Amino acid sequence: MSKTVKAPPATVADDELAALVAHWQAANYLAVGQIYLMSNPLLTEPLRPDHIKPRLLGHWGTSPGLNLVYTHLNRVIRAREQDTVCVWGPGHGGPAVLANSWLEGSYSETYPDVRRDAEGMARLFGQFSFPGGVPSHVAPETPGSVHEGGELGYALSHAYGAAFDNPDLLVACVIGDGEAETGPLAASWHSNKFLDPVHDGAVLPILHLNGYKIANPTVLARIPEAELDELLRGYGHDVLHVSGSDPAVVHRAMAAALDTALDRIGLIQRAARAGGTAERPRWPVIVLRTPKGWTGPTTVDGLPVEGTWRAHQVPLSGVRDNPEHLRQLEAWLRSYRPGDLFDSDGRPTSQVLACVPEGAHRLGSTPHANGGLLLRELPVPQLERFAVDVDAPGSAVHEPTRVLGGLLEAVMGATRERRDFRVVGPDETASNRLQDLYRATGKAWQAGTEETDEHLDRHGRVMEILSEHTCQGWLEGYLLTGRHGFFSCYEAFAHIVDSMVNQHIKWLKVSRGLPWRRPIASLNYLLTSHVWRQDHNGFSHQDPGFVDHVLNKAPEVVRVYLPPDTNTLLSVADHVLRSRDYVNVIVAGKQPCFDWLTLDEARAHCARGAGVWPWAGTEREDEGPDVVLACAGDVPTQEILAAAQLLRLHLPRLAVRVVNVVDLARLLPDTQHPHGLSDRQYDALFTRDQPVIFAYPWLIHRLAYRRTGHPHLHVRGYEESGTTTTPFDMVVRNNMDRYRLVMDVIDRVPGLAVRAAGVRQTMEDARLRHHAWIREHGTDLPEVADWTWHPGPRGTRPAPA
Amino acid sequence: MSKTVKAPPATVADDELAALVAHWQAANYLAVGQIYLMSNPLLTEPLRPDHIKPRLLGHWGTSPGLNLVYTHLNRVIRAREQDTVCVWGPGHGGPAVLANSWLEGSYSETYPDVRRDAEGMARLFGQFSFPGGVPSHVAPETPGSVHEGGELGYALSHAYGAAFDNPDLLVACVIGDGEAETGPLAASWHSNKFLDPVHDGAVLPILHLNGYKIANPTVLARIPEAELDELLRGYGHDVLHVSGSDPAVVHRAMAAALDTALDRIGLIQRAARAGGTAERPRWPVIVLRTPKGWTGPTTVDGLPVEGTWRAHQVPLSGVRDNPEHLRQLEAWLRSYRPGDLFDSDGRPTSQVLACVPEGAHRLGSTPHANGGLLLRELPVPQLERFAVDVDAPGSAVHEPTRVLGGLLEAVMGATRERRDFRVVGPDETASNRLQDLYRATGKAWQAGTEETDEHLDRHGRVMEILSEHTCQGWLEGYLLTGRHGFFSCYEAFAHIVDSMVNQHIKWLKVSRGLPWRRPIASLNYLLTSHVWRQDHNGFSHQDPGFVDHVLNKAPEVVRVYLPPDTNTLLSVADHVLRSRDYVNVIVAGKQPCFDWLTLDEARAHCARGAGVWPWAGTEREDEGPDVVLACAGDVPTQEILAAAQLLRLHLPRLAVRVVNVVDLARLLPDTQHPHGLSDRQYDALFTRDQPVIFAYPWLIHRLAYRRTGHPHLHVRGYEESGTTTTPFDMVVRNNMDRYRLVMDVIDRVPGLAVRAAGVRQTMEDARLRHHAWIREHGTDLPEVADWTWHPGPRGTRPAPA
Repeated sequence: MSKTVKAPPATVADDELAALVAHWQAANYLAVGQIYLMSNPLLTEPLRPDHIKPRLLGHWGTSPGLNLVYTHLNRVIRAREQDTVCVWGPGHGGPAVLANSWLEGSYSETYPDVRRDAEGMARLFGQFSFPGGVPSHVAPETPGSVHEGGELGYALSHAYGAAFDNPDLLVACVIGDGEAETGPLAASWHSNKFLDPVHDGAVLPILHLNGYKIANPTVLARIPEAELDELLRGYGHDVLHVSGSDPAVVHRAMAAALDTALDRIGLIQRAARAGGTAERPRWPVIVLRTPKGWTGPTTVDGLPVEGTWRAHQVPLSGVRDNPEHLRQLEAWLRSYRPGDLFDSDGRPTSQVLACVPEGAHRLGSTPHANGGLLLRELPVPQLERFAVDVDAPGSAVHEPTRVLGGLLEAVMGATRERRDFRVVGPDETASNRLQDLYRATGKAWQAGTEETDEHLDRHGRVMEILSEHTCQGWLEGYLLTGRHGFFSCYEAFAHIVDSMVNQHIKWLKVSRGLPWRRPIASLNYLLTSHVWRQDHNGFSHQDPGFVDHVLNKAPEVVRVYLPPDTNTLLSVADHVLRSRDYVNVIVAGKQPCFDWLTLDEARAHCARGAGVWPWAGTEREDEGPDVVLACAGDVPTQEILAAAQLLRLHLPRLAVRVVNVVDLARLLPDTQHPHGLSDRQYDALFTRDQPVIFAYPWLIHRLAYRRTGHPHLHVRGYEESGTTTTPFDMVVRNNMDRYRLVMDVIDRVPGLAVRAAGVRQTMEDARLRHHAWIREHGTDLPEVADWTWHPGPRGTRPAPA
Repeated sequence: MSKTVKAPPATVADDELAALVAHWQAANYLAVGQIYLMSNPLLTEPLRPDHIKPRLLGHWGTSPGLNLVYTHLNRVIRAREQDTVCVWGPGHGGPAVLANSWLEGSYSETYPDVRRDAEGMARLFGQFSFPGGVPSHVAPETPGSVHEGGELGYALSHAYGAAFDNPDLLVACVIGDGEAETGPLAASWHSNKFLDPVHDGAVLPILHLNGYKIANPTVLARIPEAELDELLRGYGHDVLHVSGSDPAVVHRAMAAALDTALDRIGLIQRAARAGGTAERPRWPVIVLRTPKGWTGPTTVDGLPVEGTWRAHQVPLSGVRDNPEHLRQLEAWLRSYRPGDLFDSDGRPTSQVLACVPEGAHRLGSTPHANGGLLLRELPVPQLERFAVDVDAPGSAVHEPTRVLGGLLEAVMGATRERRDFRVVGPDETASNRLQDLYRATGKAWQAGTEETDEHLDRHGRVMEILSEHTCQGWLEGYLLTGRHGFFSCYEAFAHIVDSMVNQHIKWLKVSRGLPWRRPIASLNYLLTSHVWRQDHNGFSHQDPGFVDHVLNKAPEVVRVYLPPDTNTLLSVADHVLRSRDYVNVIVAGKQPCFDWLTLDEARAHCARGAGVWPWAGTEREDEGPDVVLACAGDVPTQEILAAAQLLRLHLPRLAVRVVNVVDLARLLPDTQHPHGLSDRQYDALFTRDQPVIFAYPWLIHRLAYRRTGHPHLHVRGYEESGTTTTPFDMVVRNNMDRYRLVMDVIDRVPGLAVRAAGVRQTMEDARLRHHAWIREHGTDLPEVADWTWHPGPRGTRPAPA
């Protein structure tokens, strides 16, 4: 069993120490300046109320700790020429990261109007948390960032995602002790069981215990150190401690700890890459214990501030109106001796910059944090190799996701050397029938193995852990650093990452407005084991709402696809794998599904996004339909086609049009979504005045409410009515079955109610027969289980353009 | 430092051991029977294909382990007369829990048609995972359950929630090693820093390592045991191990481990309750390591099954058509010797039942798992004590949540002795201005303390941890066991628990259909720090979508309230605190907000849910309005009133009606939601044909799309356009500001476009002035910051009933 390693004594020379302290002081000064100052940035005159921002926003508490980490990462990066990215978990400490970027010059290179001089410093201060300026947190706007600092929980999984397949990269990751209480962070410690010391880079977690959150102490800061060490060793780490409040002591200890950590990482990597032991290494972790709001006001208005939660945001409030606070602020700022840190033009002194690395080694300039710079086109093979033959619609069945697995296998194979594609999933890759992937690669695994195991591989690129949060975090980190990926997940449990995908969509939306951020590969979800085929797992697994959730977000970033069959899934997958800067959600089944379209037809259908299926309808040339049957998704499509077939049989003179929608955003007006149909296109497809029966999902109403024909639109979808039952009973319970759809047509087409009363009764009878049958047999009615599509005799007019 | 304690040798006598094994065998038999058999439950004749279910559904893998735990909990419960609830984390092992409930008789008492005899056994088998029967997972239908077994992650936080304020209760909690990989579970280990050994019961986690998930090994089963011990000790536990595959060995070890654990828990509790040490105790945890699918087929078709992931669900497939599988199944079933376990009538033998407890001590009969039985009316005080005086609308401002804090303080005070009310939140109780609570109780905290801390209390009933998942899990467990609670959270980060609230809503929906489940207290959210007042934290904190999310779920369970001012918030809070079986979501601000309604007016307004504010409009008696300005929520209401005031000033002859909506579900048709307005009521409020400008939120369209007047409805809400800026700039950026609303009126009221072109330009100019001002000053325009409501001169007709 390993034991806790205390950091060895100082390894830095006195002049290097002085330079480190100077850099840290400069960063602290700049952080305070951003929070407080509108002008007089170098304190060349006594501080006056009008130098102070009218509204004080920002987080001071974590900033001195982040400044310490940045300063010391600079030293080791420069000394070792070490490619490094840092994930700033306490990213609400935006002032700190901005300060360091400005000091190293990466900020001015990214934003030339904020120069590294007094005028630039004034801009740096003035823009912070100011309307039209920059956010108070680390954000896409922040050079060197791959991690929004606002929502907590994902720092470490992002860090691992960045490190995978980046063998020369060091990913430092600061974890606040507040963030450490979140579930996603707690789970992500175990990511080290998935990190390959041969092909992946290193992650160095730096657990920053400053003791308090917004208003409470933190759990990890208040358990005995021995217990914390057990916890971190239990996570598989060796622990290095850096503690204190005396800057000289802490700086020496931090330098030593970082050297120790990087030396150890080097040993681990060299041993593994030399073909050494296959034993999982114990990677180092640094526990950094410094006061919250360190170097800030000790007390304010008689209450302790430094070292308490009161330092979390703005320690001195109302500075414009409170002379004592103004005096304290000036003393605080001057305590850093800005005159020693910046020359009269406001440029950092050479001492301040002595340990700062150069060029792309600067944390604010690394291309890994602007992944689009490194992104290569994904070698997606020709779909013809995988497409299924479709002689006629409905003449064969395939499992769509199994066929997709072949395509993904080929992509995995084509990236064998490049290693820039990974597939993640919460223990469901095989359940989702993507197991052909294992012919090209194994499942990443560094923990123990047993003889019965299959497909585990120290160097595998399929990632499985039973944590949707960790999967999502890994993938985001991987994409943001310029690689490609694919996430397969049960539909219902995609909601677990609702909040994470929100943040990623926001990140992409903002990034798209920043010319210097290059487009990255899209985040692609395959939601399978969807609501209609969770009959076996029951009610808890039945939830189709993830598409509603994502379509609530920035429309320019989000795409939702519901391919109705295998070739359409292939075409959609090909499209999303090549796309950039989107969140793509594909909902597709893994169960056997009729093939409706050839590959060429599927491609054309996907290009349109929504279209008439002339072979499925009964409308004549040059006549409009009496009713439109519309559908999205595999099971709804099957029910709509079965309903169309019943209508053809029972009401042969009714003119039915069948419309299938693959790309849900097509239903939105083109004024609201780049994929939206114009009103003319929409009306041509759905008519302006005929009844439309739309099978699934309810959000159709939200998408289509502005359309002329909307009052005639009737949606059938999941009604939150489920249990463990049969597949067809799922659609019956939710009133989306073929019989109900036929009844809907009869109820809504003028004049049919009376004329087709007998047909309606036949449908009612079929539903009753269904109920009786499943209660006796536990399976679906033979007429449903054995249903096939029979082509109709009548021609139709082609789909409107 | 504590060390791992191996379970001492057996403490059970041989006959007791035999009885335990017999009970376990019986439970295993019943679990297999449920998965496979339609008839011939006692194997009184050779097994034939027609005895087998046509569709094989269920999870065998975890069942023998759950059966072991249930069997041994029975023993200690009976021996110690120990009130106990068990949370079955691997609740997909439904067959196991059902089997044990049937054996102990609680099943037949809950469902008298499933008797404890051969016929009842046949029903038990036949109904499992069968249409019209019972779900395959532990679910609300399962006696003794407070935890849906489908979605993983929440077992331990539910267990702690059940234990809080239940000093005599033992809450056992089985955690699967799959579930242990999830974030929410990983975070919830630290719940022991919040468990008060004086006033709370005990939680006994039983980490069940059966080694595999659906298709992969589990992380915790594949790290060295010493590392696992460090991890669990790092979580603050003492570790007891039970390992093996020889039933006799494992049963002895399990009995000993449970005795040791319960003895130790007793020592801890007695010491604490005798006023002993204030040091946080090390609670025991049991690590149970047994094979997946233990006692099931060793190999099937030449592949290993027992002890591998292949045992996860149905080890033998296609049994009807595969004679070899049929033979294996029969051998497997007969290996349990059913003839020794059940008499010829199918009743369990006395040996099988020897260790089973009686009455309410049975796990399937404990009232704690049917919390409504124990629920007491919450003593909510008279609101008059807290209401703010409102001489005239808009004549004063209050911080709504701060006033609410007083009400919650009073409830907390009134439950001081009863201890059946808790407030949870992720480190935001004070930030959300509910800090008056601390006058009545402190914040639960058992970890270390320092002098600077405030309000920490070993016995406190405010619960704060920076994990929304843990907060939600605690509260659910607390409510499900018959107590009351309140959850305050930043609006944007409520999405973190999207998936959890889904499951709780599903639980409540199903429970409502079960007459034996008594109603429990509602789960009440206060979402504050909402989108309009996250100007300081920026884009990552701006997300109003949680209400969209919950309104997607079962309408009979979900209520959403947007009180526009302080007294309305009080009235809503009073209502939700008294309600049962709902998920109530309140969105209300913490910033100073104008008071619009007196308490009596607020009560009347809440009773209606939506109504005209006659004092705010300008329509005359007996005339309809030219335009309806509608609003929901505090900031939208203020903008609508400011717009109404501008219209009164600039277009005095325009007849404006102001409608405020508190209860969002009122907008739904009464056919879709119990709170929905009839069409007649809706039309009376909003008119059938006049323009309606509705400020916030977008989902208004989804709620109101069926209404006659819907084509005239124009919604302004959050457009996912945010950053760090000023409060008013947030509404301007999202086009919901007063000036834009006036422009919307001008654009939509027929004839105004030309007549009011000048006014429209004035509004445009105001927006330009705003942009220029905030860029220069960083604050809002004085005319906005200092805005107040001026009463209008004109009367209006009263609101339609």
